[in-house]
Amino acid sequence: MSTSTHFDNRGQARMVDVTEKAVTARTAAASSIIEMNLTAAEAIRAGDSRKGDVLAVARLAGIGATKWTPTLIPLCHAIPIEGVELEFHWLTSPDDADRQSLQCLATVRTTYKTGVEMEAMTAASVAALTIYDMLKSVDRAMVIKQIRLESKTGGKSGEFVRGQ
Amino acid sequence: MSTSTHFDNRGQARMVDVTEKAVTARTAAASSIIEMNLTAAEAIRAGDSRKGDVLAVARLAGIGATKWTPTLIPLCHAIPIEGVELEFHWLTSPDDADRQSLQCLATVRTTYKTGVEMEAMTAASVAALTIYDMLKSVDRAMVIKQIRLESKTGGKSGEFVRGQ
Amino acid sequence: MSTSTHFDNRGQARMVDVTEKAVTARTAAASSIIEMNLTAAEAIRAGDSRKGDVLAVARLAGIGATKWTPTLIPLCHAIPIEGVELEFHWLTSPDDADRQSLQCLATVRTTYKTGVEMEAMTAASVAALTIYDMLKSVDRAMVIKQIRLESKTGGKSGEFVRGQ
Amino acid sequence: MSTSTHFDNRGQARMVDVTEKAVTARTAAASSIIEMNLTAAEAIRAGDSRKGDVLAVARLAGIGATKWTPTLIPLCHAIPIEGVELEFHWLTSPDDADRQSLQCLATVRTTYKTGVEMEAMTAASVAALTIYDMLKSVDRAMVIKQIRLESKTGGKSGEFVRGQ
Amino acid sequence: MSTSTHFDNRGQARMVDVTEKAVTARTAAASSIIEMNLTAAEAIRAGDSRKGDVLAVARLAGIGATKWTPTLIPLCHAIPIEGVELEFHWLTSPDDADRQSLQCLATVRTTYKTGVEMEAMTAASVAALTIYDMLKSVDRAMVIKQIRLESKTGGKSGEFVRGQ
Amino acid sequence: MSTSTHFDNRGQARMVDVTEKAVTARTAAASSIIEMNLTAAEAIRAGDSRKGDVLAVARLAGIGATKWTPTLIPLCHAIPIEGVELEFHWLTSPDDADRQSLQCLATVRTTYKTGVEMEAMTAASVAALTIYDMLKSVDRAMVIKQIRLESKTGGKSGEFVRGQ
Repeated sequence: MSTSTHFDNRGQARMVDVTEKAVTARTAAASSIIEMNLTAAEAIRAGDSRKGDVLAVARLAGIGATKWTPTLIPLCHAIPIEGVELEFHWLTSPDDADRQSLQCLATVRTTYKTGVEMEAMTAASVAALTIYDMLKSVDRAMVIKQIRLESKTGGKSGEFVRGQ
Repeated sequence: MSTSTHFDNRGQARMVDVTEKAVTARTAAASSIIEMNLTAAEAIRAGDSRKGDVLAVARLAGIGATKWTPTLIPLCHAIPIEGVELEFHWLTSPDDADRQSLQCLATVRTTYKTGVEMEAMTAASVAALTIYDMLKSVDRAMVIKQIRLESKTGGKSGEFVRGQ
Repeated sequence: MSTSTHFDNRGQARMVDVTEKAVTARTAAASSIIEMNLTAAEAIRAGDSRKGDVLAVARLAGIGATKWTPTLIPLCHAIPIEGVELEFHWLTSPDDADRQSLQCLATVRTTYKTGVEMEAMTAASVAALTIYDMLKSVDRAMVIKQIRLESKTGGKSGEFVRGQ
Repeated sequence: MSTSTHFDNRGQARMVDVTEKAVTARTAAASSIIEMNLTAAEAIRAGDSRKGDVLAVARLAGIGATKWTPTLIPLCHAIPIEGVELEFHWLTSPDDADRQSLQCLATVRTTYKTGVEMEAMTAASVAALTIYDMLKSVDRAMVIKQIRLESKTGGKSGEFVRGQ
Repeated sequence: MSTSTHFDNRGQARMVDVTEKAVTARTAAASSIIEMNLTAAEAIRAGDSRKGDVLAVARLAGIGATKWTPTLIPLCHAIPIEGVELEFHWLTSPDDADRQSLQCLATVRTTYKTGVEMEAMTAASVAALTIYDMLKSVDRAMVIKQIRLESKTGGKSGEFVRGQ
Repeated sequence: MSTSTHFDNRGQARMVDVTEKAVTARTAAASSIIEMNLTAAEAIRAGDSRKGDVLAVARLAGIGATKWTPTLIPLCHAIPIEGVELEFHWLTSPDDADRQSLQCLATVRTTYKTGVEMEAMTAASVAALTIYDMLKSVDRAMVIKQIRLESKTGGKSGEFVRGQ
């Protein structure tokens, strides 16, 4: 028997049948962290003063990515997305030496038979990839350090909140 | 003036004009690392014995993701992808206690006016996201630990190989 | 504070949360007008006599465009489209001198938490763009003169009918 | 015989064979004009002072639309887009009474066998539709007044510049 | 009057209005048969012993195709797919001389206002096309012999089971 | 070793590297046959007299499908399609008793490093699926009897013409 519900008992991939599952309100939040050099960090911070707003582009890319999740993730259901928000937070201050870390938190909502964890994970990933794309000319060595689910609510498996 | 070539000198986003750039052979390789518990790692290893091949699904998802890169990353050019390969390597052995780490290495090739770094980064990311999706029912706390460019060749900016 | 609900109170773009909104039957109708020379107008009218039916192609393009609206318009929700119709009407007679005007009216229906104004607007636009594409070889100077919402029903903001 | 090259001599639609056409550098520029009330115009102008940047969203939507042109316009070839820029200009001053007009100018570049007129037209249209979407809550009666090709260069049919 | 509900009474294509139809559980099953030479059949059977699993790729392609059905089939509604399974069966034994036949059976589920016949038909077709693509280098003359609806349940038109 | 070039020598799927292949003019032609009852056949023939032109819709669907081939077929390269034509021919006359057969022939052209066989096969399939969709209300038992490559030219593997 397979451990993953995405396979049947012969190990064959399938889109899991959710016909009988209840329609409930669901949310999921996922985060990504991207680490960069000071020049890249300054370019992002300068966006607030109208020199090209990297985070505005990354935010739209992350929102858009929730619409492409079932295209990217082969066995994902297409889910009616009812709300998406992306927040960016610096984990380091401009005075920190060397490497700077920026966190993206993506929150997605639906009312459906299955959850939006993958939509939140994909939004956080694509926002980080977009930041990399916008600034790879100033720091090609930039690294996405972490992508993870932070929390979810709704559905039979109930609430998940990541412990520290 | 903006530091990112994705903005003009008033800070307005644009798709950079590559009309004058030379068509050259280019490659890029990017990696992702996903960390999981022993149950999830066993499910992946069991795929080799026909209980549901998680990595085969993730590999196809990563290959497919190279075709969606210009859809996901707003200012990316659409590039004729001429070859894609994904390799998976365990960074830990089944006997290691606690958490297991799997690396995905995506290599992408083109002959075009601009490079395929974003295609390789997106392939590595989507492969990791697909593994998360396939196994989140056995380890919801699984974390993508790292996504980064490993190397690139071709184009005016020349070769890049990540130092250790 | 922002005037547009598509931004939060810090001016950051988001996909508006519609979780709490009621599911109701909704319709929207939008129109476009395209102005062309006599040769182009004759080519369209000749379509009725089997020399290549420009409006049949434009009608399918407009229907198809309703499916791409959330891809094109960044903060749009994906809405289950339940019906689409496109009508074309000449606003000028073949005997009118000089420029001829053709109107397209697109009507879209759904039963959902938010409306289909953008789907109707996009259908009317893409139908007009398709006519331009089909006939630009005979009249490159053709102009889309107007795209506007004509009416909507359903939802909290209620009915809208454009006055003259 | 059909007047449109998009039909064969029996009036049947086809994607025109461009195999024999020469690869040349090509550009196309198209414009759209959107007319709105003072409240909507103020919301756009306020975007410059960080209350939600409508034009930044519309600009990205227009750039993105060039990638979807062959999906939207049935008989269009998929063309390698090598550069896209969108400019917005007010045609009226904030002191003008009543209705305000904003122009969008989209410029698209390629090096290919056929031109990018439809990509430029689609970019200008989708930018205008996005502005409508962002501000329809403050002015549902907003009207797209005009979408037209402004100029093109390259290709066998040569240069086109719209006269006044 | 037109016989097809996809046209109105003037013969103009439309997306049929399903607003008033009842939401019910619906299933559809469709099959395809692909006929190939012994070398190609052996390559597929060898997939079970880890020499490259053609059917695993075809199965994912078929599942994915259900998500693209409204893109491919112009007047199709976009339907929330709630489950997809693909089964492959050999209709001939490895000892049969000459040509070998493989059947694909695709089953699709939804709870919606209209049925999933086209999603099942498209899944069975794309799975067969993918097998052709994977093995055309060893048997370019391979033929898809049959694609047909096998059964459907739910909706006003009720149950359909193909007779022999 | 694997027989299919779509797998490496460990049986892992890949997008085949075509970097070194020569750019040449290439064509491919594929056919499909759809068998239907007399009522469905009459509905198609009536399309010529303006009661709803089934074949015009199917032709556009087939042309459009060439653009979606790399999305549908997992390991396909995205190829610049330079021309597409679809022809429909009745294999039976209206006087033939019982079942009627309609053939679709799709021809696709490119100038690229790899061929367009899959684009032609997909176009012929989707045209047939669209006919099924348009007329399933009058003949749900309609069957696609055959999809196959008819011929190809260009590329290292040279010319292929199906024998009788």
